[in-house]
Formats: sequence, structure tokens, C-alpha cells
Amino acid sequence: MYRTHNCGELRLGHAGEQVTLAGWTAAKRDFGQLTFIDLRDRYGITQLVFDMDTQPELCEQARKIGREWVLQIDGVVRERSNKNPDRPTGDIEIDVRSLRVLNASKVPPFTIEEDTDGGDEIRMKYRYLDIRRAPVKEKIIFRSKVAIETRKHLADEGFIEIETPYLIKSTPEGARDFVVPSRMNAGEFYALPQSPQTFKQILMVAGMDKYFQIVKCFRDEDLRADRQPEFTQIDCEMAFVEQEDILNTFERLTKHLYKSVLGIELPDFPRISYDEAMQKYGSDKPDLRFDMAFTELDSLVKGKGFPVFDNVELVVGINTRGQASQFSNKDIKKLTSWLQRPQIGAKGLVHVKWNEDGTIKSSVGKFYTDEQLKTWLEAMDARPGDMLLILAGEKDATRKQLSELRLEMAGRMELIDPTVIKPLWVVDFPLLEWDEESQRFHAMHHPFTSPTKADMDKMNSTDRAVLSSIKADAYDLVINGAEIGGGSIRIHDRELQMKNFHLLGFTPEEAESQFGFLMGAFEYGAPPHGGIAFGLDRLCAIMQGEKSIRDYIAFPKNNQGRDVMIDAPSSIDEEQLKELHLQLDLPEQ
Amino acid sequence: MYRTHNCGELRLGHAGEQVTLAGWTAAKRDFGQLTFIDLRDRYGITQLVFDMDTQPELCEQARKIGREWVLQIDGVVRERSNKNPDRPTGDIEIDVRSLRVLNASKVPPFTIEEDTDGGDEIRMKYRYLDIRRAPVKEKIIFRSKVAIETRKHLADEGFIEIETPYLIKSTPEGARDFVVPSRMNAGEFYALPQSPQTFKQILMVAGMDKYFQIVKCFRDEDLRADRQPEFTQIDCEMAFVEQEDILNTFERLTKHLYKSVLGIELPDFPRISYDEAMQKYGSDKPDLRFDMAFTELDSLVKGKGFPVFDNVELVVGINTRGQASQFSNKDIKKLTSWLQRPQIGAKGLVHVKWNEDGTIKSSVGKFYTDEQLKTWLEAMDARPGDMLLILAGEKDATRKQLSELRLEMAGRMELIDPTVIKPLWVVDFPLLEWDEESQRFHAMHHPFTSPTKADMDKMNSTDRAVLSSIKADAYDLVINGAEIGGGSIRIHDRELQMKNFHLLGFTPEEAESQFGFLMGAFEYGAPPHGGIAFGLDRLCAIMQGEKSIRDYIAFPKNNQGRDVMIDAPSSIDEEQLKELHLQLDLPEQ
Repeated sequence: MYRTHNCGELRLGHAGEQVTLAGWTAAKRDFGQLTFIDLRDRYGITQLVFDMDTQPELCEQARKIGREWVLQIDGVVRERSNKNPDRPTGDIEIDVRSLRVLNASKVPPFTIEEDTDGGDEIRMKYRYLDIRRAPVKEKIIFRSKVAIETRKHLADEGFIEIETPYLIKSTPEGARDFVVPSRMNAGEFYALPQSPQTFKQILMVAGMDKYFQIVKCFRDEDLRADRQPEFTQIDCEMAFVEQEDILNTFERLTKHLYKSVLGIELPDFPRISYDEAMQKYGSDKPDLRFDMAFTELDSLVKGKGFPVFDNVELVVGINTRGQASQFSNKDIKKLTSWLQRPQIGAKGLVHVKWNEDGTIKSSVGKFYTDEQLKTWLEAMDARPGDMLLILAGEKDATRKQLSELRLEMAGRMELIDPTVIKPLWVVDFPLLEWDEESQRFHAMHHPFTSPTKADMDKMNSTDRAVLSSIKADAYDLVINGAEIGGGSIRIHDRELQMKNFHLLGFTPEEAESQFGFLMGAFEYGAPPHGGIAFGLDRLCAIMQGEKSIRDYIAFPKNNQGRDVMIDAPSSIDEEQLKELHLQLDLPEQ
Repeated sequence: MYRTHNCGELRLGHAGEQVTLAGWTAAKRDFGQLTFIDLRDRYGITQLVFDMDTQPELCEQARKIGREWVLQIDGVVRERSNKNPDRPTGDIEIDVRSLRVLNASKVPPFTIEEDTDGGDEIRMKYRYLDIRRAPVKEKIIFRSKVAIETRKHLADEGFIEIETPYLIKSTPEGARDFVVPSRMNAGEFYALPQSPQTFKQILMVAGMDKYFQIVKCFRDEDLRADRQPEFTQIDCEMAFVEQEDILNTFERLTKHLYKSVLGIELPDFPRISYDEAMQKYGSDKPDLRFDMAFTELDSLVKGKGFPVFDNVELVVGINTRGQASQFSNKDIKKLTSWLQRPQIGAKGLVHVKWNEDGTIKSSVGKFYTDEQLKTWLEAMDARPGDMLLILAGEKDATRKQLSELRLEMAGRMELIDPTVIKPLWVVDFPLLEWDEESQRFHAMHHPFTSPTKADMDKMNSTDRAVLSSIKADAYDLVINGAEIGGGSIRIHDRELQMKNFHLLGFTPEEAESQFGFLMGAFEYGAPPHGGIAFGLDRLCAIMQGEKSIRDYIAFPKNNQGRDVMIDAPSSIDEEQLKELHLQLDLPEQ
């Protein structure tokens, strides 16, 4: 028995008890007569006291101990004279009677405190030290709680967790697969799953009815910040359901997670259509913690002699409340430059200020009378002191630009309260997305997504506009402007699936060789079914109001896909390559 | 809403209620006036009735339905006239009022019943149909229950589930790795983990203290029956613990699983040393559902003029209770041939029969008097009617052979009660195993296992006999003769780890390049730690008294490592290979 208690649990009520503790030396303070050590473990920090007067040898021993040494001590709990109210154990300390060094430590390369002096690269290399820091440790524990509560809740709702295989088949559709050469099947490869999509659909055909799995998925993509080659999904599928059943089920799950892990009761989630989201917020994952919805001004601004507005597809703006006095002409110029950067790509910015003194100032004041501008202000529910920001251009691009501006302004205006939680369902996505470059349709969600019942007939059209207008029976859960997950009702009919593959540019042979097993399964009594997947890493980050997912992952990879702690990937030897029937084909140096 | 109830829940109390059900057509019976359909889903089977008199059109429609068609019906629950006591829903039937075919089905290639006419290969190809069969479905659901109860119990005990990475580093030690070529790091490879061993130890250094994970592991081995290239472990590690803490923790888990999933209370698990297990049962995973322990006879049989016994290392036997009259000379000859097969490799078999009439018959009667044979019988606690079976030879080999014979005889004597559960801990394994072929030591458990405290000093020896006698702080959980899992207290000191690598034939450079990150971590305050891993598939099979693990896996691979349903592995295209900096190097046809 290495310890009777952990370093986070002793309280005043334990005073007088003989205890044994073990942990790491977080800090040491030597005073004339006394030496203090803060002993840390996963559960907290407890102060140890060594007294030179009463135990000189022990105190000498303690003074030789360095940071992060692993200690085991016996001692007696006693009340502290100057208590530390910031620490749950701050009312007590341990009068140490014996001390054993379980392991020494080199001086750690960065400080192991709430805030560290270690840079990203060194923290990743010594990840085992970084995880000792409370902020990282707490995130990993938080993730574990979210996972267990997810499992408990779904099991209570009758879901079965079923493991699907990791060694599957490569399919060129979608992102790039990681592949695994097969030694026993020369020249052949497994692929690591990008998601268990086809297997979970097969499980519905198999009658399993309510499936879930918390599962690793793999994508060999060029890594952007905050993308990992392996990531974790809460993956679900249900049979004999319609969209409404799935939304309700996973709204219950989300509410359960907020309640059980954070103690927060969420109200019912609003549902808005993709079209409405795009029209009002220019985004299919709108942040609803603040309003600033778009107002389309075309009917008010066109035909009044301002050619820029007359010749565009869309004129649309937001009302920034109380900002008229906050933005000088120079500030507006800066904001315009910010919008004109290639990342956003706006052509320009029109503003209308309604000053507190009642005057109206606008960058298009030459083209419109005050009376006309007032109609805009009215349309956007403005009051004296407000400022309208207006963009114009091609519809989709302009909405995206204004969406960026909306988020930027909300940040500057401090409208984003991190304690507010605004979930919503976005529904009725388009089924197909025309890609100019490849001159073909792509699946907006994935090729197994069903059109809505209302749009089923349009699947037979050959008109690109008609096909583009088909709505998918698909949905996303969005919280505070981040997509937590999405899903769809699936196609469960072989003919319809073949038709969809055809629209997506698959030849019948390609469809058969890649997904023949699924379409084969559809011929043996496939039930209506649908599902959803949440990104676990993302969900955890959003629940805690964090921007980065990385510290929710115990051992993340860097932007080159490397694990710098273990130094992977690495070379393998010739013999291993030979067994796998492979040769390296390296680029010229 | 596709259904108001499932097909397993309606009872007499529901009589008169209007319900909607959905499911698969398990069977159809047409009589003159009535047509019956058994509608199946995950939860059970409910009988539907169509009446030609009252609803002729509906009944005609029903008569066209084939096996495995997916139906949705509305109807009224009513009491059955001839009840089916074998089915929970057997008291009721549904008087159908409307019927919708949700999907048709081809005729399935095998019957979807408890016992099927489908062979292994076809059941694997149409796994989605096989899973509709109750025995397969129930095993998958059982596994899900074991997994969730494992998680609940360990979480309640303060364990944190932490995901370790799947894309790690290849190490030549142990079984063969599956590797994953890196596109972004030309010529380099990730490996899929054979277990999260080094990561869970790193987590202990990181202070996480109680880690678990239900995790996929991968081994590229030639597949024997009942081995899968990917398999699932309940993987655990604890810091600040000794062996006793770990055994108690995982004995509690095992008891919890039997209690919560099967309703069975297990008594405390006995603990026996590896040496005792080998001496008494010739196996480190003895089946204790029956006794038939070994008795060593050397002191009684040697020096009596029988050269075969005089010149061997060990003479050891078992007493087969009441078998004297069951085995003719011909039967014993057959048993001897069975033992002499190369799989077992015994030289011969000596028997002593104590017949019911008091006479003693033995194959070595020429060499020993009845008085001498009686001393053997006494030593083995024999009674009239019993038969001794005795083997002789080199110690380890003879024990193994007698272990096989013990199991075989228990089977023939019907001593193995499938309802009996006999768990035990086997402890104090040897640390090192001498391998004649490679002329070096191998790790009996793995290279991170600590010697016992008592044997720590022997690590400095260069004497092979002394090194062979070192005991490891390692343990296995055995239930009914199957190894459920094992673990050890780990080395947490860099010097000792290096010494162990040296004994295992690693050069310092090899040790550093493969495990430098772990030994580096040991220098920054590694706590004493240890762990264990259970095979989830195996545990499920043993808990249900099944021999094969395969049906606990939703989508298993065949003996060639192929998934015959999806047809994986498969070839990938040239472009993909090129991106991975690889060329095929196929064997000559």
C-alpha cells in the first residue's frame, strides 16, 4: 500500500490522523527552521512540513529534494496556521515523520504550473510532463467524463455499442485513406476507416436497430491547424426512424452531457433550414450567442442611380448597435482593408452612421438622400448611435464575407459571452453541390444521404438547376458557431443509391467495386435508417469554451503528422518491406 | 414514427391496443382462411394475423410477401387462442388492419433461424443476414453489455479512460507490426499498436494514476483458428501500487461483470504460483473445474530396476477415478497413439488399473510387484476401480503432455461442468525464458516487466541458471482453463530497464532507438506502476461458456486475414502508391 489518501482529499476533519501520501514535488520552500514541500498528484496538492528543530535529519533529507521527484511520506495531518483558501486542502498540512524517495527527476525542461514557460514543440516532446499540468490534465479527464456519460446515456436508451473493423477497404471517394499493406495478400492493402459509415449501415440491415460507437477515424489530409490525422467520433445509426426521431434522440444526448458533466440545463434547440441560415447569417453554422442577423436591402437600394448596387446580385448588411461613434473614417478604412484581404475577398464596404445628434453619414451619401438612407435604417431596426455595414456582390460570396464581418464585429463589440450556450439544428441541406473545377456534382454530406421525400422525384431530372435544388434529409448540430456533428437519413434502396452514384459521376463498375457489398445488402431487406456522428474532440472543446481541440487529445500529432515524443513515423527495415512485397520509391534528393 | 412498439414487448396486458410495428418477415404460414406472419426485430418476434373473410385484399397482399421482407403494420393486439409458451410475446397476436412493404428482399442464401443451414464462408459473406440470427445477435449484445459494465465499474473506481494513438512507431520486438506508410514523411511508416503498453506507462509518468481503455490492438501474425489480426483489450495501468492492489482491483472488476451481466456471485479467486501450477497441472492456465492434479512418483518408481523410469527427469501421473473398467487394452493402445501424435509427442503411456475385484493390472507389471504398485496407488489416493495414467521424460515436456492427457480424460469422463466457473490468479512467473534456437533470453511477459523485489539482486548475475530463476512480478487471470488476461508490475527505473534490455539481447543503441522515449520519461519522476490487460473477446466467450470468440466480433476476418463481406484487402491504384513513395515488389508468379 503506497498511500492511504491522495493529495487532494485531506481536510480539517482529518486533523490528527496518521497518513501516507505519495506524489510529485511541485514546489519546495526552505525557511530557517522549516522546509515546505507541495506534494502533487492527479487529485490535488498537499503541503508537507519538515521541522529542523524536531527532525533535523529528515529536514536535511527534504532540503536535497528537487522538483518533480517522486516521494512517499508518512505523517500526521494538522491544521495550518495560515490557511490557503485557494486550495481545497489549504486548511491542513502534513507534519512529516518519514520520507522515502521513490524516484528522482532531472530538472524538467519547463515549469509544471497552470501557466508554463514551455513552447509548443517542447511541451509535445515531453508530453508526460505537460499532462502533469492541471489545465491539460483536467481536459483529458473532462473528455473521459463526456465519453462515459455518452455511453451511459445511449446504453440507457437501448443503443448497443458495436465495434466495427479498423482494417477495411480503400475507397477513392472523399478524403485520402491511410493504407496498410497486407503481408498475407501480396500487393493488396487494407485502409483505415475515415468513418464506420458503410459498416453502421450494414448493421442496420443486420437488424441491430440502435448502434453507437465511440471510434477513432483516420484521414490522410494535409493538416491544417487543429486537424489531426486520427480523431474520435461518437458514431450512431438507427433503423425505422425519420429525421425527427434522430434529432430528438441526439438533442437528449447533448442535453444529458451538459447536465451531467457541467450541471447546465439546455433549453430546446431551435431548428433552422440551411437556406435560412445562409440568408440570415451567411453560414451553415451560425453563432447565435448574439443576433446581428443580415438584412437584404435590394428593394431599397436598387434603381436609385448607384450603379455598384444596381449591378450586383445581392446587397446585404448588418446593424452594429451603438457603433456610430466608435469608428472613425480611419477605422472604417482599416476594416475595409481587413475585408479586402484574400482570405475574405470583399470588394468594398459601405457604411451608414446614424449619429447620436440625429445626423446621418454614409460612404454612399452622394448617391442616396437622407430620406432614402432612413428607409435602410428602419429596415434594419436602427436607432441613433447605430452603424450599418453593407456588402454587395455575388450572393454566396457576399453572404460568406458578411458572415466573417458579423463575427469580427461581435468580437470587437464584446457581444460573445463565453458562458452562453446556443445550440441549434441546421436542416434541409442541399443534396448535391456543383463543382466548377471537376464539372460534376459532389455530395454535400456523403453519397449515402437520402433526398427528402418531397424532392425524391427530382432525382430523375437531368437539369442541373433542378438537381441543385434537391434538398437532402440531412442535419447538423451547431453550438456557438461550431459544427459538433451531422448526419442524414440514408438511402436504403439499391436503385436510388445507384442513381445517386450516377449523379456523383461514378460509373456503374466503380460503384459496384467500391460499394457493391452495401448495395448487395440493400437487396436483402434493408430497413429505413439514418444516423449522426459527433466529433468528440470538438464537442469537449466547445463544452468548455475552448478554441483548440489539441489538449483534449492525450498524444496529438503535429502539423507534419509526427508524434515528436516517440518520433513516429520512422523508417522500417528492408526485411519488413520485403515481407510486405514493397520497395521504397523515394523522391530525388 | 415508424412504430409504437418493438416486436418483443407486447403482452396480454396490451390486448385491445392499436399498435404500429415494423420488422422483418421471419416466417409466413398460409391456411385456408388465415395467413400468419412472424414479424422479427432485434427485440423479438410477434405474430401477425390476416383474415381472408374480413380483409380479403389485405390478406391477398400478405400472401405475396417473402422471407426477410421489411414490413410496417397497424393493427390491434388480441389474445391468442393457442398460445406459444416458448415466446415472450406468445400470448398475443396482432389483428392487422393495414400493411406497408418498406422493402422487399431476395430469397436469403441461408435460413435465418437459431440453427442455420449456412456454412461458415457464406455466413461471413452475408454477415448482415447472419447477425439477424438470434445466437449471433445475442453475442454481440452481450459483448456490448460487458463493455459498458467494465467502463461503469472502472469509472466508479476512479479510472480515467484515455485514448492512446493508433498511428505509432514500429518496434521489431514481439509479434509483427502492421505498418502504415506516411505520405507526408517519405520513406517512413507508422505502426498500428500491438498494445498501448508504452503509452500507458507514459501516462503513469504523466501522473494519470488510474488509466483504462477498451482498445483495438493489431498483430500481423499467421492466423490460427480463433486468432484475429485486430482484437480488443480491456487495458489498464495504475501508479503507486503493488501486485496485491492490482489483483484486488481486477478481481473486483471480474466479479462485478459476472454479477451485473450474468447475475452470478463469484467467490474470492485462489492464487497459485506458476511453479505450483506447472507441478500440479502442467499448465500456467489450469482448468480447476475438476481436480485430477498430478502426483510425482519419482521416489516410488526409481531404483527398482525399470530402466525407462530410472533414466528420466520426471515420472508423473494422474488418477482417473473409476476408469479401470472403462478402458480395454485396445482403448489404452488408442489413447497411447493419441499421446504419441506429434502435436503432443509423448513417448509412451504407463497405466495401473486397480480393478473392482481388488486385482492390480499394469503395463509395467513385469517390473514392479503388486506391493510396489500399491504404494503408487496410495500416493495417488486411488480406490478400487481407479486407473493411474503415468508419463515419464524430460520435466517440462512431460508435464505439458500430461496436461493434455488430463484435459482429454476430463472430457471423456464428463467432469467438465459448463455451468461451473473457476477463476484463479497465477503469479510469480519466470522473468526470462531461455530460447535454445536464438541462444538468448526472451521476456516471458514483456521487456517492461519488473523482477520481484526478492529477486532484484539476481539481475546482476551472469549465470544462466541464476537468471532463469528470477521471478517476475507478473500475474495472469485464468478462468476455466483459459487465460483472460495478464499483467505485471513494471520497471520504472532507467538503469534497471537498460539492464533488462541487455539481458534480452538489445544493444544499447537498439534499446535507445526503439524505447528511448520511455527511458527518457523514467528520468523525470516515474512513479512505481503496473497494469493488466484482459482480452475482451475471450472474456465474453468464457463468460458464456463458448469456445470460439468469432461471433463476439461483428465483422471478423477469415484465416487469410480477409474480410469476405467487403472484399478487403484489395489493390490500390498506381497514383496512391506513388503518393506514398512506394512500388510493389510482387513475388514471381
